[in-house]
Amino acid sequence: MAVRFAQRMNEMRASEIRELLKLTQRPEVISFAGGLPAPESFPVEELKEVTARVLDEHGREALQYSPTEGYPPLRRWVADHMNERFATAVAPDDVLITSGSQQGLDLSGKLFLDEGDVVLCESPTYLGAINALRSYRPRFVEVPTDDEGMIPEALDALLAREGRARLVYVIPDFQNPTGRTWSLPRRHAFMEVARRHRIPVIEDCPYGEVRFEGVPIPPLKALDEDGLVIFLGTFSKIFCPGMRIGWIAAAPYLIERYVLIKQGADLQTATLAQMQVAAYVENHDIDANVARACEIYRARRTAMIRALEREMPPGVRFTRPSGGLFLWVELPEQVNAPELLAACLEQEVAFVPGGSFFPNGGHQNTMRLNFSSMPEERIDEGVRRLGAVLREFIGRGETGSKVPKFEGPKVQRLEGSKVVGGN
Amino acid sequence: MAVRFAQRMNEMRASEIRELLKLTQRPEVISFAGGLPAPESFPVEELKEVTARVLDEHGREALQYSPTEGYPPLRRWVADHMNERFATAVAPDDVLITSGSQQGLDLSGKLFLDEGDVVLCESPTYLGAINALRSYRPRFVEVPTDDEGMIPEALDALLAREGRARLVYVIPDFQNPTGRTWSLPRRHAFMEVARRHRIPVIEDCPYGEVRFEGVPIPPLKALDEDGLVIFLGTFSKIFCPGMRIGWIAAAPYLIERYVLIKQGADLQTATLAQMQVAAYVENHDIDANVARACEIYRARRTAMIRALEREMPPGVRFTRPSGGLFLWVELPEQVNAPELLAACLEQEVAFVPGGSFFPNGGHQNTMRLNFSSMPEERIDEGVRRLGAVLREFIGRGETGSKVPKFEGPKVQRLEGSKVVGGN
Repeated sequence: MAVRFAQRMNEMRASEIRELLKLTQRPEVISFAGGLPAPESFPVEELKEVTARVLDEHGREALQYSPTEGYPPLRRWVADHMNERFATAVAPDDVLITSGSQQGLDLSGKLFLDEGDVVLCESPTYLGAINALRSYRPRFVEVPTDDEGMIPEALDALLAREGRARLVYVIPDFQNPTGRTWSLPRRHAFMEVARRHRIPVIEDCPYGEVRFEGVPIPPLKALDEDGLVIFLGTFSKIFCPGMRIGWIAAAPYLIERYVLIKQGADLQTATLAQMQVAAYVENHDIDANVARACEIYRARRTAMIRALEREMPPGVRFTRPSGGLFLWVELPEQVNAPELLAACLEQEVAFVPGGSFFPNGGHQNTMRLNFSSMPEERIDEGVRRLGAVLREFIGRGETGSKVPKFEGPKVQRLEGSKVVGGN
Repeated sequence: MAVRFAQRMNEMRASEIRELLKLTQRPEVISFAGGLPAPESFPVEELKEVTARVLDEHGREALQYSPTEGYPPLRRWVADHMNERFATAVAPDDVLITSGSQQGLDLSGKLFLDEGDVVLCESPTYLGAINALRSYRPRFVEVPTDDEGMIPEALDALLAREGRARLVYVIPDFQNPTGRTWSLPRRHAFMEVARRHRIPVIEDCPYGEVRFEGVPIPPLKALDEDGLVIFLGTFSKIFCPGMRIGWIAAAPYLIERYVLIKQGADLQTATLAQMQVAAYVENHDIDANVARACEIYRARRTAMIRALEREMPPGVRFTRPSGGLFLWVELPEQVNAPELLAACLEQEVAFVPGGSFFPNGGHQNTMRLNFSSMPEERIDEGVRRLGAVLREFIGRGETGSKVPKFEGPKVQRLEGSKVVGGN
């Protein structure tokens, strides 16, 4: 008689990225597989200073339980910051502080999804969202998506067809994995469709402020007049990810339910961490910090695009993002990215095969490259190796099956291994 | 056309305790309703010192993403500490660091429960566990429980009857809400039943080390030879709750699945907070800290018991715990505790009516009193007020219906109110 698990466990898989990162921990490997912000941009000294101040002035409060909703000064700052930065109309009470924006995804699944309900998403979409929502056993419907974002007419038709549609999940700015940003007309058209169908929209916005050039485009939340948009924000990319502070900004009828769910999930986000972040943003210039990070990322993004232009064989297409951490590569149809990865790992370069960003599979000829976490020389060298392996791979043509098949991540843990990394 | 929520939302209610605490925030109110550790016991200065050290020595690492499993030195410390303290045989790889032990409950629901599955629990049991597990829509079966703990013969019979039993949830040490501790023979007999039915057991142990007198009793985890016991531990009661660091200790076949689920839920627990706790336990004497807290709680527990003996009318029974934060009061059958609370709030004293600790309702003549969070004089005064209201209440006899009915917590948020407090 074996211990029985919930049915959802049959469908849950380890994040391919986190598992892959186990194989790429050796410093020799040039890994474009992770999603780590550059640690050079972390304000370590400033955090040390504000922590001492918080503990001196409010030590006991900082170490005690606190409201599920979040630390009031931080909720207030988030609302003000969003309104100033994004022209939204968010009140402090519309903000729930979460344990990273990943938690916002999990809480959203719990709030909206019964087994068999439908989640509509971009194609491809963020793997971590697929993993979070999958535990509520929905059906994913991928909405056709082009360089301007999700195609509203396609969404409209799918919403008309799918009676159990409960949620649309999108990342309009510098999307993970493609790096694409939705145009403003597309955003308006999208909101028009969402409004007509009265469907809640999760707007996941981790990279909205990580823009290297060009003019910011208002988030969906700023265009939402019906309380349908649930905005997920995070300090991970504008401050640091290791404190796990994110937020949900949504209409009060939604926030009151999210609060209920969060109570059951983890009572509250850490008091001290919230107070540290609040003290940081009150006493230091977070915009300057973001600008510093963007400076680093812009140079790396440019280096990667130049290297790809130089090293990729004909038939390879890739995006040229103006922000975020990732770009997206489409290889010639016949190339199988998981097999290519196996060959690349022998040359000590790594990426994430794109197939896992499609909840319903396929698209094995795609890959995601991270450009934020290593200096330009390493990017140059890594793309050079990648290009060499790819050219050899294509040259072999139909003999690709000689390459040892990459088995994909297993559920079992590798002894002594570490699973590090973002998304 | 209204936005549709998942069916679980029909059943989820705000924690009665957290909602109550909103009414008891005024400093005039003597509240026995919370579950807050005494902030006097928090090692604020030590934490300041170790934080500076962590940020000086490992600043970038502390602010970066880190493994889902947890910070390796902290996992190692937890394993060593449990083995030394509880005579368990836990390996570092058997430990998953969680965002408080509340998260361990939520992850457990996700791992084990499909809708309609059965959770067996003590009667009464921890309200936060009911709330966490309820979102997976199980049926709760309360197992008869006496002063020595859950009654093994009753559990055996219920497990034989309930084909969909998936999980037993228990708190063998200084239980919340009753303060009861299971005897050693009872623990052995319980494990024998669990083993025969091969049913996973969640052993929630937040108070195991918060013992004021007498000899510690081995946890179920120390008696488990079959990898069935999932031990939930926390730093909330032995260090401080505001950092939200807890852990799950379980067999590898379970931990690997918990890691998967945690990835989807929040990627990882905060890196910095884990490193702060690890640095604290490595450089300071946590046992001395626990002893200091126990000293405070022992005096408060004793003060509360003396006051109850003095102030309670005949027909009132209460537990006399040797540890933990709570004791449990059974009022005469005809007294309705929610109505009593309404009368008490007029006299500015508060408690938690016991009914909400029974997942299937009833037991309206019970209440939970917290003794950890206020000094002895306040305890004396609060119990005096409680006794006076109760005597008047009983004196009125069947006219109790004249007392304005307490409506119970609402889902809606009170404007400007704060929801603070543990469990």
